[in-house]
Amino acid sequence: MKIDGTPYRTIWPAADGQGVEIIDQRLLPHALQIITLHTVDDAAVAIRDMAVRGAPLIGATAAYGMALAMRADAGDRHLGEAYQHLLATRPTAINLRWALDRVRTHLADEAPTMREEAAFALAAQIADEDVETNRLIGVHGLTLIEQIAKSKPEGQPVNILTHCNAGWLATVDWGTATSPIYQAHERGIPVHVWVDETRPRNQGAALTAWELGQHGVPHAVIPDNAGGHLMQHGAVDLCIVGTDRTTAAGDVCNKIGTYLKALAAYDNGVPFYVALPGSTIDWTLHNGVADIPIEQRDAREVTHITGRTDAGAVETVRITPETSPAVNYGFDVTPARLVTALITERGICPATQQGLASCFGRAQAAE
Amino acid sequence: MKIDGTPYRTIWPAADGQGVEIIDQRLLPHALQIITLHTVDDAAVAIRDMAVRGAPLIGATAAYGMALAMRADAGDRHLGEAYQHLLATRPTAINLRWALDRVRTHLADEAPTMREEAAFALAAQIADEDVETNRLIGVHGLTLIEQIAKSKPEGQPVNILTHCNAGWLATVDWGTATSPIYQAHERGIPVHVWVDETRPRNQGAALTAWELGQHGVPHAVIPDNAGGHLMQHGAVDLCIVGTDRTTAAGDVCNKIGTYLKALAAYDNGVPFYVALPGSTIDWTLHNGVADIPIEQRDAREVTHITGRTDAGAVETVRITPETSPAVNYGFDVTPARLVTALITERGICPATQQGLASCFGRAQAAE
Repeated sequence: MKIDGTPYRTIWPAADGQGVEIIDQRLLPHALQIITLHTVDDAAVAIRDMAVRGAPLIGATAAYGMALAMRADAGDRHLGEAYQHLLATRPTAINLRWALDRVRTHLADEAPTMREEAAFALAAQIADEDVETNRLIGVHGLTLIEQIAKSKPEGQPVNILTHCNAGWLATVDWGTATSPIYQAHERGIPVHVWVDETRPRNQGAALTAWELGQHGVPHAVIPDNAGGHLMQHGAVDLCIVGTDRTTAAGDVCNKIGTYLKALAAYDNGVPFYVALPGSTIDWTLHNGVADIPIEQRDAREVTHITGRTDAGAVETVRITPETSPAVNYGFDVTPARLVTALITERGICPATQQGLASCFGRAQAAE
Repeated sequence: MKIDGTPYRTIWPAADGQGVEIIDQRLLPHALQIITLHTVDDAAVAIRDMAVRGAPLIGATAAYGMALAMRADAGDRHLGEAYQHLLATRPTAINLRWALDRVRTHLADEAPTMREEAAFALAAQIADEDVETNRLIGVHGLTLIEQIAKSKPEGQPVNILTHCNAGWLATVDWGTATSPIYQAHERGIPVHVWVDETRPRNQGAALTAWELGQHGVPHAVIPDNAGGHLMQHGAVDLCIVGTDRTTAAGDVCNKIGTYLKALAAYDNGVPFYVALPGSTIDWTLHNGVADIPIEQRDAREVTHITGRTDAGAVETVRITPETSPAVNYGFDVTPARLVTALITERGICPATQQGLASCFGRAQAAE
């Protein structure tokens, strides 16, 4: 999508053909800085230190990291080392392993002299596939926004609430939850996005608000506490969120707090949609709340916060008493019963085993 | 309650008999600073600039402000001016008007020479009455905690979730939602409090965590997003929150985000209690969501946050993009259907018209 009028992806080969460029997302929204990755170690550090985040973007970065590794040394031993090195950066990221497995398998069949070129080509293909998947999610999701727009007085925006950042910054382009929003905006359908700030890491306030603003999509940041009140008063027409992991029954594991918004949507008759690529579905899981372990993250994410002072310095401040412990769960599970439908690259389906089978059944049965 | 081992109230006459002392709550949790109020203007500034906050404490501060005014000039004209001056500080604070009306009416009957003494005596009485009201809320609420404690294995703490600060800092002592917690703690019942940080003003992280910690009550700060997940996994035995305004039907208007916790409690079978003095009941209101206007507060509370740097300086930082608007609603309404019961100074009652009448019916019918 656009930054200050110029189209961007989140990762792309450098113009000199030597490196791979990314946006350092740790500095957003306070600064836009492009980093060039020259080595597999650069890629590993970018993933580990969260200069890039979001499952699809992590996968694409890992694929490009393998390509950078092959440029340095395309031997079998280095192929295996690069794989392990990249895999260790975010051990629980499913997309990371998926992308690495795909690249390693592909390269193992190639002669070492061909591996650099093959790896760059495959990394580009993985990135392009992600863009196409997200574009299709948007094409399907757009129909939901169009329907609501038709039912509103001319010129009244469709109010969409989202949580966390399932935006283009988390993917290679378009995003998942944001893809229908960007497509509606590009077609001239007036939309307005309520952006949950998404404590404790504030991905909504820092990333979603920034990317929507840069692309020109009207939006407002709200505290995570506000969504229920807005829904009670008819200020939300639909919710669209992303998911990190989706069970075969349609339960959705997404950023902590998603479940609370789903409850409020259900209580107020507001449709609650989850946008996802088929790759987030874990066909082995059936009861999300019982079966998905939720990681506890560093309490410092709760006790400290980073922002920019009026003088322009980026500072980290403590917001809790020194002696008060804090607890920080990364995700929660929204039961399928609260999800109106799933928006996938293969269409919109009910959040049920049958619904998912209708979109993915045959393709996934073979896995 | 105690600060570092020493019992405190939030407001008290200075030892020299000349001023009135308060805790400057704007500096918590980073510094404990006592301010002495010498004049009605000092009291007005303390209320207006939120050195004191919380309906009962605002009321007590206003009453002491009237006493300070009478010390300077006990004439009829100054009595009226002091009333108007204090009333203008927080025009929507119901308790403020209630306390001021009570003091003015009382003093109007006194000869000017008697007004200073009468005003200080009445302010002290208003403060004492608040302490007693909150103590009684705690006595009744304690029974709920005791019941749950009995059903748990010996030594396992009762896990209580609270939102915002309905603690002793919001009142003269004990607090409302925290009063049952302090009383359980003092009786040796093991309790553990999940403290919602309560964005955007962070009264949970800054005030509730601080006061619980100072009094020695085990607790942990959590993002507002986390409560649903904790309830899904059995980590919350009960919720107790406060209320700014309660309808005759038992709907509860409290800090933004309370409604989301009530939904999660309902969905998970966790009892959700609201602690309140009868004075928060608005007998003229019957439909909270429809009838209670919700104030929009300064967007800067969402876009900026204040904390302490590692170097010890208190800094305010911006956490959203410069160009992203923010929207900040102060309160939301939790419908009575989601409230397990109300804990009042007159006992525990269902959140219904009949329930409230059983505790307050005859007394309030006269109003």
